[in-house]
Amino acid sequence: MDGQYWERAKETMDPKARRAGILRDIREQLDYVYRELPFYREYYDQHGFHPSMVQTLEDFTRKVPVITKDVLRREQEEHPPFGRYLGFPQEEGLHIHGSSGTTGRPTFYLFSRDDIAYTRKVMAQALYTAGVRPSDVVQISTDLGMFMGGWGALWGAEEIGATCFTPGAGNAERHVRTMYQVGATVLITTPTFALRLLDQAKALDLDPAASPLRLGIFIGEPGAGIPGTKAALENGWGIAALDCATTSEMTPWATNVECQERRGVHVLEDDVYTEIVAKDDVHAPMAEGESGAIVYTHLRRKGQPMLRFWSGDESRMVYDACACGRTYPRLPDGVYGRVDDMLILRGVNVYPSAVQRALLEVEGLGSEHRIVLERKGAMDEATIRVEYDPRLGGGAPSAADLEALQARTGQHLRAVTGIRFGLELLPPSSLERFDVKARRVIDNRGKL
Amino acid sequence: MDGQYWERAKETMDPKARRAGILRDIREQLDYVYRELPFYREYYDQHGFHPSMVQTLEDFTRKVPVITKDVLRREQEEHPPFGRYLGFPQEEGLHIHGSSGTTGRPTFYLFSRDDIAYTRKVMAQALYTAGVRPSDVVQISTDLGMFMGGWGALWGAEEIGATCFTPGAGNAERHVRTMYQVGATVLITTPTFALRLLDQAKALDLDPAASPLRLGIFIGEPGAGIPGTKAALENGWGIAALDCATTSEMTPWATNVECQERRGVHVLEDDVYTEIVAKDDVHAPMAEGESGAIVYTHLRRKGQPMLRFWSGDESRMVYDACACGRTYPRLPDGVYGRVDDMLILRGVNVYPSAVQRALLEVEGLGSEHRIVLERKGAMDEATIRVEYDPRLGGGAPSAADLEALQARTGQHLRAVTGIRFGLELLPPSSLERFDVKARRVIDNRGKL
Repeated sequence: MDGQYWERAKETMDPKARRAGILRDIREQLDYVYRELPFYREYYDQHGFHPSMVQTLEDFTRKVPVITKDVLRREQEEHPPFGRYLGFPQEEGLHIHGSSGTTGRPTFYLFSRDDIAYTRKVMAQALYTAGVRPSDVVQISTDLGMFMGGWGALWGAEEIGATCFTPGAGNAERHVRTMYQVGATVLITTPTFALRLLDQAKALDLDPAASPLRLGIFIGEPGAGIPGTKAALENGWGIAALDCATTSEMTPWATNVECQERRGVHVLEDDVYTEIVAKDDVHAPMAEGESGAIVYTHLRRKGQPMLRFWSGDESRMVYDACACGRTYPRLPDGVYGRVDDMLILRGVNVYPSAVQRALLEVEGLGSEHRIVLERKGAMDEATIRVEYDPRLGGGAPSAADLEALQARTGQHLRAVTGIRFGLELLPPSSLERFDVKARRVIDNRGKL
Repeated sequence: MDGQYWERAKETMDPKARRAGILRDIREQLDYVYRELPFYREYYDQHGFHPSMVQTLEDFTRKVPVITKDVLRREQEEHPPFGRYLGFPQEEGLHIHGSSGTTGRPTFYLFSRDDIAYTRKVMAQALYTAGVRPSDVVQISTDLGMFMGGWGALWGAEEIGATCFTPGAGNAERHVRTMYQVGATVLITTPTFALRLLDQAKALDLDPAASPLRLGIFIGEPGAGIPGTKAALENGWGIAALDCATTSEMTPWATNVECQERRGVHVLEDDVYTEIVAKDDVHAPMAEGESGAIVYTHLRRKGQPMLRFWSGDESRMVYDACACGRTYPRLPDGVYGRVDDMLILRGVNVYPSAVQRALLEVEGLGSEHRIVLERKGAMDEATIRVEYDPRLGGGAPSAADLEALQARTGQHLRAVTGIRFGLELLPPSSLERFDVKARRVIDNRGKL
């Protein structure tokens, strides 16, 4: 710890020198995985790739095949439980974690003592970058179970020497009451659960703006990077709301993190090298500032290292200096969409996050919505069901209030997305609230 | 680690020498809390007690007032959040935990880095005593949130160097599937949840006896110490089922733990000094083998130390040697009841655990029951609602089968408890299953 930096020399290094180090690390990792991890050797052989083909960072992007969740899932099914990319004897594993699988079988992670010690350091750097200090009481409002999110946050906060509080899974009322009781100054959770806690605080007649919180670090889903959501969190709780996290495969997963300047997400690329590539060509790098798919690479993990992991997330990257003095690249808009989540409606690409952003910008709308997709003949129809604000029309909106709101909403949505949506205004609290991650797209197109 | 011992010299010490050390530790703790912790000084002054009054272990029992949960709750309400018995500056706290409160406000625990490091060592000794080894995969099937249970288990298993797996809160199906997928060899959970997982395994067509488990360590409630429940767990899962745990206030809470000889629960009294006293007189020690209330004392914790904490649990203690070579006292029947839970029915003391034990001994009964209490005029009536076994009468029991079972059950219950209960036989799966702790006594006596 050195003033505003966790590790000043590392964070403020000349970017060219850092890149040279990254190239060395990448070449070492490629040699290591090809030599030691049968999964990688086979995979690279099948793809006609050999580590000797990489002399530059551009080679890395152009020539190394990507790994996807499906590839990992298949490898673990064939070589249970951890796949042939473990990198240490299984009995040296200290923690098993996993990611939820759509097929019922999670993808399992096994961490050695060394990998956890390393993860703790990087998580600490990231949380310190976001502003966590030893004097903070950090409330981690996530399940601490199979999933990595809470664990990484806990390890980093412990390493900083903050006081950590983990109220457990679910039970929003307990999370809110205890937050006030123990005097939590930092909240780490999903944006969805933080909004849920905000409602819960009001329901308990607690004043959220008078809460002990000063900082929120939001993980697990985009949200703190979406201006409307960010504003709802910041104004609601009276905090700074910062965005953090990559994906659990990439643990230490906090290498995307906002600093106090809040000019977007810093990319701690000297631990997890991060590329933006074309959505339809994993070997085509995108130019500075252009939107593309994110591909991640572990530079230091020896256990279950991911080299060119296709995250399915979308972002854009810039290289200009940040006032905080850190010389890392940045994602100025954070991670704003999932390549897989993109909807194509009448030939137009629409991200659910763009719809959410647009709705949060309309005065008079409430905080919850759904996007309902249906097929009418050959056409896809998209209807947005959105609550209006409890305060609209002084709490008892007239038909004219609702009509005006409807017109305003439709207009703004069309301006932002280019699409004319069906629109249904609903009374406040009509829609179910989510406890962990939001699922706001309801796709009925395959249904009768 | 030294063969079957975590720390041979400590565990096999001459009991007299150990007791001499305990007395020294106790006197040091009394001086410390009186000198440094305003809560204790005030409490002792109010009770006319001063540390100089303790020269012997008998003095300790005879003269030191007990602390109860209510006393702690009141102290924390008046001096939030941690009470004036913290013992270190609040900002040096590393983890906050708590126990559920009936009043809505939990009692909070704050652990310093030193207290956690100490806790890890004692938890490791205890789990090692129960048979956990570095080669084990330890599945901790509890919530890792506010409550201490899972955390202590995790810390101890990590310290041993076992591979730890924490599937998270709830979701029995996931706990069972992942147990087979990762090859868990040790399960740490409540007896109730372990029985729930047994049902779940069968529902998933998995063979519990062919599970990778070899050992179960059961915490959070009596159960592994109740012969019928122990047998259900051991036969069902094909494991050794060992009993462990005191109460979260006494963290490191595993100082009551069974060894592989399974002759009852060892009491690691050189970390948590443990007394058995009369249920109605906290200053009257019980003789060897006689049943009484358990009072616990931290010998080494400097943060939130508990000196003579009234647990509300009931047990008896013996001093004869154990074949394992450990020279600790033992609770030969484990913790078998709660002083608070004891029912007085028509003047007879009955423990719900005795009813449970009796029911599990009757051939033809199933695994779930309730004890329903009602007031009829001036009399308390107790009815037991219990499921019959799915295999009774080949799966389709006749009226005669049920009548015979009813007679058998009533007779056995009366023999064990001395009480004639009302009795209702229910078809299998009639009663709700519990996920964490069982609540089998339904007290309708205060209701209309």
